[in-house]
Amino acid sequence: MRLRLDLSYDGAQFHGWAAQPGLRTVQGEIETALATVLRLESPAALTCAGRTDAGVHARGQVAHVDLADDQVDVEHLLRSLRSLLPDDIGLRALAVAPEGFDARFSALERRYVYRISDRGPGDPLARGQVVDWPRELDVDAMNAGAEPLLGEHEFAAFCKKREGATTIRTLLVLRTDRRDDDVLETTVRADAFCHSMVRSLMGALVAVGEHRFDPSWTSDVLAVGERDARVRVMPARGLVLEEVVYPPDDALADRASEARQRRGN
Amino acid sequence: MRLRLDLSYDGAQFHGWAAQPGLRTVQGEIETALATVLRLESPAALTCAGRTDAGVHARGQVAHVDLADDQVDVEHLLRSLRSLLPDDIGLRALAVAPEGFDARFSALERRYVYRISDRGPGDPLARGQVVDWPRELDVDAMNAGAEPLLGEHEFAAFCKKREGATTIRTLLVLRTDRRDDDVLETTVRADAFCHSMVRSLMGALVAVGEHRFDPSWTSDVLAVGERDARVRVMPARGLVLEEVVYPPDDALADRASEARQRRGN
Repeated sequence: MRLRLDLSYDGAQFHGWAAQPGLRTVQGEIETALATVLRLESPAALTCAGRTDAGVHARGQVAHVDLADDQVDVEHLLRSLRSLLPDDIGLRALAVAPEGFDARFSALERRYVYRISDRGPGDPLARGQVVDWPRELDVDAMNAGAEPLLGEHEFAAFCKKREGATTIRTLLVLRTDRRDDDVLETTVRADAFCHSMVRSLMGALVAVGEHRFDPSWTSDVLAVGERDARVRVMPARGLVLEEVVYPPDDALADRASEARQRRGN
Repeated sequence: MRLRLDLSYDGAQFHGWAAQPGLRTVQGEIETALATVLRLESPAALTCAGRTDAGVHARGQVAHVDLADDQVDVEHLLRSLRSLLPDDIGLRALAVAPEGFDARFSALERRYVYRISDRGPGDPLARGQVVDWPRELDVDAMNAGAEPLLGEHEFAAFCKKREGATTIRTLLVLRTDRRDDDVLETTVRADAFCHSMVRSLMGALVAVGEHRFDPSWTSDVLAVGERDARVRVMPARGLVLEEVVYPPDDALADRASEARQRRGN
């Protein structure tokens, strides 16, 4: 029996999504709660759509878990998990997953938003999710710098390398808008992201937004295909995984096998 | 020389606005920073528009302070204070106050917003400013219950008493709207508020929204004119002082002397 979990969390007090011995992680907290409620002898492993780094938040994370027991009362499990989970994790929904669903490989797109306050001191009430920037940024320059990055590319220049994993991705949207006068919101959508990719893209856009480089500089960085020390990895707390998009139910299995083949494990 | 300060703060880590020996307060932090920057021998006392309780937030607090020195460089003082203040206080603006300005007594209106999540678990990213409520609330009933409270009344039933101070206030707006499906926002506007008034009004509205009482019950409570144990004082963290409204500059002094006479100290 496979369950789909819809999750939101405040990443501030977590060492990221992925379970690590001795560290507080989102995956670890949920697996522990599941094992407690279901009295499992060994924890059931969660798989998520976007393995967020330490300090990164989520409003639209999706995960799945396989249970040996086919007779679980999902409504009761939802209530029990909610009462057990800490208050920085919100279990928005829990349901039996449709046939062929894989939280990671069935996903068509991930949408992240990065928020920067660039005109004076930011709102203290939003400081956990908005990064203060000491200089005003040029939104038009940032959007011009984003242009050459759109589409399918080798994004090695913006990724932490991992053995045997491809860093080819399709960037669908990378757009910055000014909101409430003093906050910039950058929306980033891609089929998938490699490690630290959104925060590295943001580092490049901020450099362009400060006029330290021309907008065309981003395509030079991309073409070199290696990490560039001039591309800062922006702070985690400005980043929120807002949404994961899946195809209709009858296309879940095909999408999963196609993505699994292309991106590997 | 009188200065006007526009402030926002996250109230979570403060024992309210008002300075208290040995406790961390918003007033205390700012007065200390001012004394440090200006090398004052005794701290200059701040006066604010709304003395928020422990845990209550502000996005639009206004305060004034009188300085003996007429030659203060306001731009420089603003930068120095910003670099010195903790990150849960935002000094949005600092300026020489217009003639006749009094942060407290010149104000025409205070606007507060109270936020409740009443459909399942709230967004963990907003949990510092939204109160989770375990049962769904009836917005129409809440607005019906608000109706008889509007206008000028003796609000003793919704206030903590203070010797020699009037508890007559004019409630201008008390309206609840559903936002984003699962969050209720109640906007409260009045000429001024007495101690714990907004959170007591919210307690009455929530009781009506849960159908524990008919909407007309609020007018009974008001008429009795004494604290009613059935009116819960709602948690502080759902409350934000959003705005303080002042008249045009040429009416500041008249408004201040009129309000001072009516409300006393």
